[in-house]
Amino acid sequence: MHKRQIKEDLPVHLVRRYLEPGPVVLVSSYWQGQMNIMTLGWHCVMEFTPSLIGCMISEGNYSHYLIRSSGECVINIPTADIAEKVVGIGNSTGAEIDKFKIFKLTADTAQKVKAPLIREAYASFECKLFDKTLVKRRNFFVFEVVKAHVIATQTAPQTLHYKGDGLFMVSGKTIDLSSQFRPEML
Amino acid sequence: MHKRQIKEDLPVHLVRRYLEPGPVVLVSSYWQGQMNIMTLGWHCVMEFTPSLIGCMISEGNYSHYLIRSSGECVINIPTADIAEKVVGIGNSTGAEIDKFKIFKLTADTAQKVKAPLIREAYASFECKLFDKTLVKRRNFFVFEVVKAHVIATQTAPQTLHYKGDGLFMVSGKTIDLSSQFRPEML
Repeated sequence: MHKRQIKEDLPVHLVRRYLEPGPVVLVSSYWQGQMNIMTLGWHCVMEFTPSLIGCMISEGNYSHYLIRSSGECVINIPTADIAEKVVGIGNSTGAEIDKFKIFKLTADTAQKVKAPLIREAYASFECKLFDKTLVKRRNFFVFEVVKAHVIATQTAPQTLHYKGDGLFMVSGKTIDLSSQFRPEML
Repeated sequence: MHKRQIKEDLPVHLVRRYLEPGPVVLVSSYWQGQMNIMTLGWHCVMEFTPSLIGCMISEGNYSHYLIRSSGECVINIPTADIAEKVVGIGNSTGAEIDKFKIFKLTADTAQKVKAPLIREAYASFECKLFDKTLVKRRNFFVFEVVKAHVIATQTAPQTLHYKGDGLFMVSGKTIDLSSQFRPEML
Protein backbone atom coordinates (compact mmCIF):
# COMPACT_ATOMS: atom_id res chain seq x y z
CA MET A 1 0.00 0.00 0.00
CA HIS A 2 1.10 3.54 -0.73
CA LYS A 3 2.66 5.18 2.30
CA ARG A 4 0.31 7.72 3.72
CA GLN A 5 1.76 11.20 3.64
CA ILE A 6 0.19 13.71 5.94
CA LYS A 7 -1.97 16.27 4.22
CA GLU A 8 -2.70 19.69 5.63
CA ASP A 9 -5.61 22.04 5.13
CA LEU A 10 -5.11 24.73 2.52
CA PRO A 11 -7.20 27.92 2.47
CA VAL A 12 -9.48 27.36 -0.52
CA HIS A 13 -8.65 30.66 -2.24
CA LEU A 14 -5.13 29.29 -2.79
CA VAL A 15 -6.28 26.30 -4.84
CA ARG A 16 -5.18 28.16 -8.01
CA ARG A 17 -1.56 27.47 -7.05
CA TYR A 18 -2.25 23.80 -7.70
CA LEU A 19 -4.67 23.80 -10.63
CA GLU A 20 -3.65 26.80 -12.71
CA PRO A 21 -0.46 25.09 -13.97
CA GLY A 22 -2.81 22.66 -15.76
CA PRO A 23 -2.11 19.18 -14.35
CA VAL A 24 -4.14 16.15 -15.26
CA VAL A 25 -6.47 15.43 -12.33
CA LEU A 26 -8.34 12.41 -11.02
CA VAL A 27 -11.95 13.26 -10.26
CA SER A 28 -13.54 10.97 -7.69
CA SER A 29 -17.28 10.70 -7.20
CA TYR A 30 -19.95 8.88 -5.19
CA TRP A 31 -23.67 8.38 -5.60
CA GLN A 32 -25.96 5.83 -3.97
CA GLY A 33 -23.32 3.22 -3.23
CA GLN A 34 -21.41 3.70 -6.48
CA MET A 35 -17.90 5.15 -6.39
CA ASN A 36 -15.78 6.08 -9.37
CA ILE A 37 -12.69 7.90 -10.63
CA MET A 38 -12.06 9.59 -13.96
CA THR A 39 -8.97 11.20 -15.50
CA LEU A 40 -9.52 14.79 -16.58
CA GLY A 41 -7.41 17.45 -18.26
CA TRP A 42 -10.18 19.88 -19.17
CA HIS A 43 -10.49 22.15 -16.16
CA CYS A 44 -10.13 25.85 -15.43
CA VAL A 45 -9.75 28.10 -12.41
CA MET A 46 -12.69 30.55 -12.42
CA GLU A 47 -12.56 32.55 -9.19
CA PHE A 48 -10.57 32.95 -5.96
CA THR A 49 -13.48 33.57 -3.57
CA PRO A 50 -15.66 31.62 -3.76
CA SER A 51 -13.03 29.17 -4.96
CA LEU A 52 -14.48 28.12 -8.32
CA ILE A 53 -13.22 25.49 -10.76
CA GLY A 54 -14.84 24.71 -14.09
CA CYS A 55 -14.68 21.12 -15.39
CA MET A 56 -15.72 19.72 -18.73
CA ILE A 57 -17.04 16.24 -18.01
CA SER A 58 -18.43 14.57 -21.10
CA GLU A 59 -21.79 12.86 -20.83
CA GLY A 60 -20.14 9.70 -22.16
CA ASN A 61 -18.31 9.26 -18.86
CA TYR A 62 -19.86 7.15 -16.14
CA SER A 63 -18.66 9.80 -13.68
CA HIS A 64 -20.87 12.40 -15.35
CA TYR A 65 -23.95 10.62 -14.04
CA LEU A 66 -22.59 10.23 -10.50
CA ILE A 67 -21.43 13.84 -10.28
CA ARG A 68 -24.56 15.29 -11.81
CA SER A 69 -26.77 13.23 -9.50
CA SER A 70 -24.83 13.95 -6.31
CA GLY A 71 -23.75 17.50 -7.14
CA GLU A 72 -20.36 16.65 -5.66
CA CYS A 73 -16.87 15.40 -6.48
CA VAL A 74 -13.27 15.54 -5.33
CA ILE A 75 -10.54 16.86 -7.64
CA ASN A 76 -7.30 15.00 -6.83
CA ILE A 77 -3.87 15.76 -8.32
CA PRO A 78 -1.67 12.74 -9.07
CA THR A 79 2.08 12.80 -9.66
CA ALA A 80 4.21 11.03 -12.25
CA ASP A 81 4.93 8.05 -9.99
CA ILE A 82 1.36 6.86 -10.57
CA ALA A 83 1.22 7.82 -14.26
CA GLU A 84 0.29 4.29 -15.31
CA LYS A 85 -2.73 4.30 -13.01
CA VAL A 86 -3.76 7.69 -14.41
CA VAL A 87 -3.74 6.24 -17.93
CA GLY A 88 -5.52 3.06 -16.85
CA ILE A 89 -8.26 5.05 -15.15
CA GLY A 90 -8.74 7.15 -18.26
CA ASN A 91 -8.93 4.07 -20.45
CA SER A 92 -11.57 2.16 -18.52
CA THR A 93 -15.11 2.76 -17.33
CA GLY A 94 -16.55 2.60 -13.85
CA ALA A 95 -19.64 1.04 -15.37
CA GLU A 96 -17.59 -2.16 -15.71
CA ILE A 97 -14.93 -2.12 -12.99
CA ASP A 98 -14.22 -0.87 -9.48
CA LYS A 99 -11.37 1.52 -10.25
CA PHE A 100 -10.21 1.93 -6.65
CA LYS A 101 -9.77 -1.83 -6.44
CA ILE A 102 -8.30 -2.46 -9.89
CA PHE A 103 -5.81 0.40 -9.68
CA LYS A 104 -5.00 -0.13 -6.00
CA LEU A 105 -5.93 3.34 -4.83
CA THR A 106 -7.18 4.18 -1.36
CA ALA A 107 -10.50 5.96 -0.79
CA ASP A 108 -10.31 8.18 2.28
CA THR A 109 -13.34 9.83 3.80
CA ALA A 110 -13.82 13.46 2.88
CA GLN A 111 -15.16 16.04 5.32
CA LYS A 112 -17.78 17.96 3.41
CA VAL A 113 -18.76 15.65 0.54
CA LYS A 114 -19.49 11.95 0.17
CA ALA A 115 -17.09 11.52 -2.75
CA PRO A 116 -13.81 10.02 -1.53
CA LEU A 117 -10.37 11.58 -1.30
CA ILE A 118 -7.68 9.61 -3.16
CA ARG A 119 -4.95 9.03 -0.60
CA GLU A 120 -2.18 8.56 -3.17
CA ALA A 121 -2.78 12.01 -4.70
CA TYR A 122 -0.68 14.87 -3.37
CA ALA A 123 -3.63 17.29 -3.27
CA SER A 124 -7.39 16.75 -2.98
CA PHE A 125 -10.10 19.37 -3.29
CA GLU A 126 -13.62 18.65 -2.06
CA CYS A 127 -16.10 20.23 -4.45
CA LYS A 128 -19.81 21.05 -4.58
CA LEU A 129 -21.64 21.95 -7.76
CA PHE A 130 -21.97 25.75 -7.73
CA ASP A 131 -23.38 26.68 -11.13
CA LYS A 132 -25.09 24.17 -13.39
CA THR A 133 -26.05 26.59 -16.15
CA LEU A 134 -23.82 24.89 -18.72
CA VAL A 135 -24.14 21.29 -17.51
CA LYS A 136 -26.96 20.22 -19.78
CA ARG A 137 -25.89 22.39 -22.68
CA ARG A 138 -22.13 21.72 -22.77
CA ASN A 139 -21.28 19.25 -19.97
CA PHE A 140 -19.50 22.08 -18.17
CA PHE A 141 -19.71 21.98 -14.37
CA VAL A 142 -18.72 24.95 -12.20
CA PHE A 143 -17.69 23.63 -8.78
CA GLU A 144 -16.90 25.42 -5.53
CA VAL A 145 -13.95 24.00 -3.61
CA VAL A 146 -15.28 23.73 -0.05
CA LYS A 147 -12.28 22.02 1.53
CA ALA A 148 -8.68 21.61 0.35
CA HIS A 149 -6.08 19.05 1.49
CA VAL A 150 -2.48 19.19 0.30
CA ILE A 151 0.92 17.75 1.12
CA ALA A 152 2.37 21.14 1.97
CA THR A 153 5.98 19.99 1.87
CA GLN A 154 5.66 19.01 -1.78
CA THR A 155 6.31 22.36 -3.44
CA ALA A 156 7.65 21.12 -6.78
CA PRO A 157 5.56 18.03 -7.53
CA GLN A 158 6.08 16.05 -10.72
CA THR A 159 2.65 16.67 -12.15
CA LEU A 160 1.41 15.28 -15.47
CA HIS A 161 0.16 17.53 -18.28
CA TYR A 162 -1.60 15.80 -21.14
CA LYS A 163 -0.57 16.64 -24.71
CA GLY A 164 -2.82 14.13 -26.50
CA ASP A 165 -1.65 11.03 -28.38
CA GLY A 166 -0.54 9.30 -25.19
CA LEU A 167 2.10 11.94 -24.46
CA PHE A 168 2.43 13.71 -21.13
CA MET A 169 4.60 16.68 -20.27
CA VAL A 170 6.03 16.28 -16.78
CA SER A 171 6.39 19.51 -14.84
CA GLY A 172 9.88 21.00 -14.89
CA LYS A 173 11.72 23.58 -12.84
CA THR A 174 10.09 26.55 -11.13
CA ILE A 175 11.31 30.07 -11.89
CA ASP A 176 10.70 33.01 -9.57
CA LEU A 177 9.73 36.23 -11.35
CA SER A 178 8.02 37.78 -8.33
CA SER A 179 10.46 40.71 -8.29
CA GLN A 180 8.98 41.84 -11.59
CA PHE A 181 5.39 41.89 -10.32
CA ARG A 182 3.58 44.87 -8.93
CA PRO A 183 2.91 43.83 -5.31
CA GLU A 184 -0.87 43.91 -5.71
CA MET A 185 -0.65 41.55 -8.67
CA LEU A 186 1.01 38.74 -6.73
CA MET B 1 13.25 42.31 -33.81
CA HIS B 2 12.39 38.72 -33.03
CA LYS B 3 13.34 36.43 -35.87
CA ARG B 4 10.22 35.31 -37.66
CA GLN B 5 9.78 31.55 -37.50
CA ILE B 6 7.47 30.05 -40.07
CA LYS B 7 4.13 28.93 -38.70
CA GLU B 8 2.02 26.25 -40.30
CA ASP B 9 -1.71 25.63 -40.25
CA LEU B 10 -2.92 23.12 -37.68
CA PRO B 11 -6.28 21.36 -37.97
CA VAL B 12 -8.35 23.06 -35.27
CA HIS B 13 -9.44 19.83 -33.57
CA LEU B 14 -5.79 19.33 -32.54
CA VAL B 15 -5.58 22.56 -30.55
CA ARG B 16 -5.93 20.51 -27.34
CA ARG B 17 -2.34 19.33 -27.81
CA TYR B 18 -1.22 22.88 -27.15
CA LEU B 19 -3.67 24.15 -24.55
CA GLU B 20 -4.52 21.09 -22.45
CA PRO B 21 -1.07 21.07 -20.75
CA GLY B 22 -2.13 24.39 -19.19
CA PRO B 23 0.35 27.04 -20.39
CA VAL B 24 -0.05 30.71 -19.64
CA VAL B 25 -1.35 32.39 -22.80
CA LEU B 26 -1.34 35.88 -24.24
CA VAL B 27 -4.79 36.88 -25.46
CA SER B 28 -4.74 39.57 -28.12
CA SER B 29 -7.77 41.62 -29.05
CA TYR B 30 -8.95 44.43 -31.31
CA TRP B 31 -11.99 46.69 -31.35
CA GLN B 32 -12.51 49.99 -33.16
CA GLY B 33 -8.87 50.94 -33.49
CA GLN B 34 -7.85 49.70 -30.05
CA MET B 35 -5.52 46.73 -29.76
CA ASN B 36 -4.48 44.99 -26.58
CA ILE B 37 -2.85 41.93 -25.00
CA MET B 38 -3.54 40.25 -21.68
CA THR B 39 -1.83 37.40 -19.83
CA LEU B 40 -4.20 34.55 -18.94
CA GLY B 41 -3.87 31.26 -17.11
CA TRP B 42 -7.57 30.53 -16.61
CA HIS B 43 -8.57 28.61 -19.72
CA CYS B 44 -9.98 25.18 -20.51
CA VAL B 45 -10.37 22.92 -23.54
CA MET B 46 -14.10 22.23 -23.96
CA GLU B 47 -14.58 20.31 -27.20
CA PHE B 48 -12.68 18.90 -30.18
CA THR B 49 -15.21 19.68 -32.92
CA PRO B 50 -16.17 22.45 -32.93
CA SER B 51 -12.82 23.36 -31.35
CA LEU B 52 -13.98 25.09 -28.16
CA ILE B 53 -11.89 26.85 -25.51
CA GLY B 54 -13.33 28.42 -22.37
CA CYS B 55 -11.60 31.52 -20.95
CA MET B 56 -12.23 33.35 -17.71
CA ILE B 57 -11.58 37.02 -18.49
CA SER B 58 -12.34 39.24 -15.55
CA GLU B 59 -14.39 42.37 -16.18
CA GLY B 60 -11.59 44.37 -14.55
CA ASN B 61 -9.38 43.73 -17.58
CA TYR B 62 -9.37 46.25 -20.39
CA SER B 63 -9.32 43.27 -22.77
CA HIS B 64 -12.70 42.12 -21.47
CA TYR B 65 -14.33 45.14 -23.08
CA LEU B 66 -12.54 44.72 -26.41
CA ILE B 67 -13.27 41.00 -26.61
CA ARG B 68 -16.86 41.30 -25.52
CA SER B 69 -17.50 44.09 -28.02
CA SER B 70 -15.78 42.42 -30.97
CA GLY B 71 -16.67 38.83 -30.14
CA GLU B 72 -13.14 37.87 -31.16
CA CYS B 73 -9.63 37.30 -29.87
CA VAL B 74 -6.44 35.39 -30.59
CA ILE B 75 -5.02 32.97 -28.00
CA ASN B 76 -1.20 32.98 -28.34
CA ILE B 77 1.21 30.71 -26.47
CA PRO B 78 4.49 32.29 -25.36
CA THR B 79 7.64 30.43 -24.33
CA ALA B 80 10.02 31.02 -21.44
CA ASP B 81 12.38 33.20 -23.51
CA ILE B 82 9.80 35.99 -23.32
CA ALA B 83 8.75 35.34 -19.71
CA GLU B 84 9.55 38.90 -18.67
CA LYS B 85 7.23 40.28 -21.33
CA VAL B 86 4.50 37.88 -20.18
CA VAL B 87 4.80 39.24 -16.63
CA GLY B 88 4.95 42.85 -17.81
CA ILE B 89 1.82 42.41 -19.91
CA GLY B 90 -0.01 40.90 -16.93
CA ASN B 91 1.06 43.75 -14.69
CA SER B 92 -0.05 46.65 -16.87
CA THR B 93 -3.26 47.81 -18.49
CA GLY B 94 -4.01 48.54 -22.11
CA ALA B 95 -6.11 51.47 -20.93
CA GLU B 96 -2.81 53.27 -20.24
CA ILE B 97 -0.20 51.87 -22.62
CA ASP B 98 0.24 50.30 -26.05
CA LYS B 99 1.44 46.86 -25.02
CA PHE B 100 2.67 45.80 -28.48
CA LYS B 101 4.92 48.87 -28.50
CA ILE B 102 6.08 48.81 -24.88
CA PHE B 103 6.85 45.08 -24.87
CA LYS B 104 8.26 45.04 -28.42
CA LEU B 105 5.91 42.43 -29.79
CA THR B 106 4.83 42.21 -33.42
CA ALA B 107 1.17 42.26 -34.44
CA ASP B 108 0.63 40.13 -37.53
CA THR B 109 -2.62 40.11 -39.47
CA ALA B 110 -4.92 37.20 -38.73
CA GLN B 111 -7.03 35.53 -41.40
CA LYS B 112 -10.47 35.19 -39.87
CA VAL B 113 -10.54 37.77 -37.08
CA LYS B 114 -9.40 41.37 -36.68
CA ALA B 115 -7.48 40.66 -33.47
CA PRO B 116 -3.74 40.33 -34.24
CA LEU B 117 -1.51 37.30 -34.09
CA ILE B 118 1.54 37.76 -31.88
CA ARG B 119 4.50 36.87 -34.06
CA GLU B 120 6.81 36.00 -31.14
CA ALA B 121 4.42 33.32 -29.81
CA TYR B 122 5.00 29.76 -30.98
CA ALA B 123 1.29 29.09 -31.51
CA SER B 124 -1.65 31.38 -32.24
CA PHE B 125 -5.32 30.43 -32.34
CA GLU B 126 -7.87 32.72 -33.97
CA CYS B 127 -11.08 32.64 -31.96
CA LYS B 128 -14.69 33.73 -32.30
CA LEU B 129 -17.11 33.94 -29.40
CA PHE B 130 -19.25 30.80 -29.59
CA ASP B 131 -21.34 30.77 -26.40
CA LYS B 132 -21.85 33.87 -24.29
CA THR B 133 -24.20 32.31 -21.75
CA LEU B 134 -21.75 32.79 -18.87
CA VAL B 135 -20.12 36.03 -20.01
CA LYS B 136 -22.31 38.43 -18.05
CA ARG B 137 -22.79 36.11 -15.10
CA ARG B 138 -19.21 34.86 -14.55
CA ASN B 139 -16.95 36.52 -17.15
CA PHE B 140 -16.59 33.11 -18.81
CA PHE B 141 -16.25 33.18 -22.60
CA VAL B 142 -16.58 30.04 -24.73
CA PHE B 143 -14.63 30.58 -27.96
CA GLU B 144 -14.43 28.54 -31.14
CA VAL B 145 -10.96 28.28 -32.64
CA VAL B 146 -11.53 29.05 -36.32
CA LYS B 147 -7.90 29.03 -37.47
CA ALA B 148 -4.74 27.67 -35.85
CA HIS B 149 -1.11 28.60 -36.58
CA VAL B 150 1.81 26.76 -34.96
CA ILE B 151 5.54 26.33 -35.32
CA ALA B 152 5.24 22.63 -36.09
CA THR B 153 8.91 21.88 -35.51
CA GLN B 154 8.67 23.01 -31.89
CA THR B 155 7.39 19.81 -30.26
CA ALA B 156 8.74 20.37 -26.76
CA PRO B 157 8.37 24.11 -26.19
CA GLN B 158 9.39 25.68 -22.89
CA THR B 159 5.93 26.85 -21.91
CA LEU B 160 5.15 28.78 -18.73
CA HIS B 161 2.63 27.52 -16.16
CA TYR B 162 1.61 29.97 -13.47
CA LYS B 163 1.65 28.85 -9.84
CA GLY B 164 0.72 32.19 -8.24
CA ASP B 165 3.00 34.39 -6.14
CA GLY B 166 5.20 35.26 -9.12
CA LEU B 167 6.29 31.64 -9.61
CA PHE B 168 6.12 29.83 -12.94
CA MET B 169 6.64 26.16 -13.62
CA VAL B 170 8.51 25.71 -16.89
CA SER B 171 7.48 22.63 -18.87
CA GLY B 172 9.76 19.63 -18.44
CA LYS B 173 10.35 16.44 -20.35
CA THR B 174 7.70 14.58 -22.33
CA ILE B 175 6.94 10.94 -21.55
CA ASP B 176 5.25 8.60 -24.00
CA LEU B 177 2.63 6.31 -22.47
CA SER B 178 0.78 5.69 -25.72
CA SER B 179 1.46 1.94 -25.57
CA GLN B 180 -0.80 1.80 -22.51
CA PHE B 181 -3.75 3.45 -24.20
CA ARG B 182 -6.61 1.72 -25.89
CA PRO B 183 -6.23 2.83 -29.54
CA GLU B 184 -9.60 4.60 -29.60
CA MET B 185 -8.61 6.67 -26.56
CA LEU B 186 -5.57 8.23 -28.19
